[in-house]
Amino acid sequence: MITPPSAEVYAEAVARSNAQAKPTGALGRLEEFGARIAACQGVCPPRPLDRVRAVVLAGDHGVAAHGVSAYPAEITPAMAYAILGGTAGINVLARQVNATVTLHDLAVAVELDAPAEVTRYKVGKGSEPIHLADALTAEQTEQALAAGTQIARDEIAAGVDLLIVGDLGIGNTTPSAALIAATLGVPADRVTGTGTGLDEAGRAHKAALIQAALDRTGGHPDDPVARLRALGSADLAAGAACMAEAARNGVPVLLDGVIAVAEAVLAESLAPGAKAWFFAGHRSPEPGQAAGLEWLGLTPVLDLGMRLGEGSGAMAAVPVLRSAVAVLRELALLSDL
Amino acid sequence: MITPPSAEVYAEAVARSNAQAKPTGALGRLEEFGARIAACQGVCPPRPLDRVRAVVLAGDHGVAAHGVSAYPAEITPAMAYAILGGTAGINVLARQVNATVTLHDLAVAVELDAPAEVTRYKVGKGSEPIHLADALTAEQTEQALAAGTQIARDEIAAGVDLLIVGDLGIGNTTPSAALIAATLGVPADRVTGTGTGLDEAGRAHKAALIQAALDRTGGHPDDPVARLRALGSADLAAGAACMAEAARNGVPVLLDGVIAVAEAVLAESLAPGAKAWFFAGHRSPEPGQAAGLEWLGLTPVLDLGMRLGEGSGAMAAVPVLRSAVAVLRELALLSDL
Repeated sequence: MITPPSAEVYAEAVARSNAQAKPTGALGRLEEFGARIAACQGVCPPRPLDRVRAVVLAGDHGVAAHGVSAYPAEITPAMAYAILGGTAGINVLARQVNATVTLHDLAVAVELDAPAEVTRYKVGKGSEPIHLADALTAEQTEQALAAGTQIARDEIAAGVDLLIVGDLGIGNTTPSAALIAATLGVPADRVTGTGTGLDEAGRAHKAALIQAALDRTGGHPDDPVARLRALGSADLAAGAACMAEAARNGVPVLLDGVIAVAEAVLAESLAPGAKAWFFAGHRSPEPGQAAGLEWLGLTPVLDLGMRLGEGSGAMAAVPVLRSAVAVLRELALLSDL
Repeated sequence: MITPPSAEVYAEAVARSNAQAKPTGALGRLEEFGARIAACQGVCPPRPLDRVRAVVLAGDHGVAAHGVSAYPAEITPAMAYAILGGTAGINVLARQVNATVTLHDLAVAVELDAPAEVTRYKVGKGSEPIHLADALTAEQTEQALAAGTQIARDEIAAGVDLLIVGDLGIGNTTPSAALIAATLGVPADRVTGTGTGLDEAGRAHKAALIQAALDRTGGHPDDPVARLRALGSADLAAGAACMAEAARNGVPVLLDGVIAVAEAVLAESLAPGAKAWFFAGHRSPEPGQAAGLEWLGLTPVLDLGMRLGEGSGAMAAVPVLRSAVAVLRELALLSDL
């Protein structure tokens, strides 16, 4: 069981907020966010969230060739190059909040023309279509988990106050929904959305494919590693391990959309207690995200209908968490008026 | 009728967004915010929202002595001093986004020990209790409207890309709810909330008082100046005039909670078409705010349960609008990939 954030510091933060020159609760959820950050840091008032770091884990998915996405798999490397060039959504939003973005190719289906550090954790090229076969081999799964753990350690070594784990890869909402359904024990239809632009017929086809994957595997409810191997992908396994390692090291993680929530659900399965270190950045239109967030007990900071991926919804929420920390730090105490 | 933001530039911004390297609509409401800002500026891509300025209009309210607030009127000057000292919520949040905050005493019940520029627009000390008498004299109302117009001009002269009009004054949700009810033609109970901390009995008393004010005056549905005189206050009249003048000059206004929304509703009555220049910063728990926003046709950026006032909820939303502008400016075009 992962050590939880400090309940004592949480209480101290609530007491400080209640002693500030404002009606009790008048800052709404900013008060909750500030107290949770303080509890994660183990100090009240909390330190500013100066060092926000995002990793974007890229991988292709065998299911993408089976009609689950409105876009072809060629978009994955194109978007990887956009991220490396600094012109993707996550880059733009990161610049707004002075955050770093680091791309890792876990399993893009082609060789990227990119610096060696981008591909050093590469596990393979794509994954098997999950309705027909396990996504990964046992060895690939172990490699991806180890990569995610090391990616978290790299970020921690660089110094990080808040970690975002983004994802890039056409088809990625399909294994994400499958992992959420398998973990929560709910049918595919409940967690399957339209991704980046399916119509209802496309969504129904995607749900049928996810249900076939669940039926094929039984969902491995008692074994998160088997679940990631059967239904996931290298990027999703790495993301889950990365989040679990961040939690083990007391680093709060700000979740993005359905892919990050699938990773968070698996991180909690891999490392019970990890979820206490997670914050939900934004509400995705994907029903699997809502189901996963409910299971994690989290309510998002933002609800703007974003569905871009890459960690973008989490990055957009960063200023709100910073504001929450700032008011807990700087608002006058009643005793000082 | 106020000149609307440019429909042509709005269409240009939507076209640009749709030509960016992302699925159509994938940035959700950020796309709408960005296009609206571009339309307000009349240029696509829009300029960054570098110059965010908040004015906080302070005033006391005669109704505060009649059991409509959980706090005594002595809090108004105490919070004015906190704002002048830079330790109130609005100051903390403004520092986070590099915005200015300027306090104006329109009608605080005491003489503030403050620089002359803080009180130069002072209209009087408090207002009459609206269930018993008109809040202001005709002369005070004209003075307050002129003050609000001049305050907007001062901010525009200083250079402003986005204006926030905050309010400070114990009891201020009562005239705000009354003005919204009178303008929308709805009963007091529908727009009356718990303010900064009433219980249900207190809320019912407040609703009865607001209904008495509506019954006493008839609500002046055809005359916004009479409505402000009878049911408002100097700070609310100034806020409405300030927002109307901003709209006349093509400056977008980011609304805060129920007080700002009451001012915005009156600004639209004073200067039809003004609302096209308004953005809703946050969702307040006050039912009058929801009713007013629906009438204005606006959906808030944030929904965090904030009810501090001072413009704080709007200030917390500033980074989201900046992110919306940034992605419209900087995200790669598909043609550039």
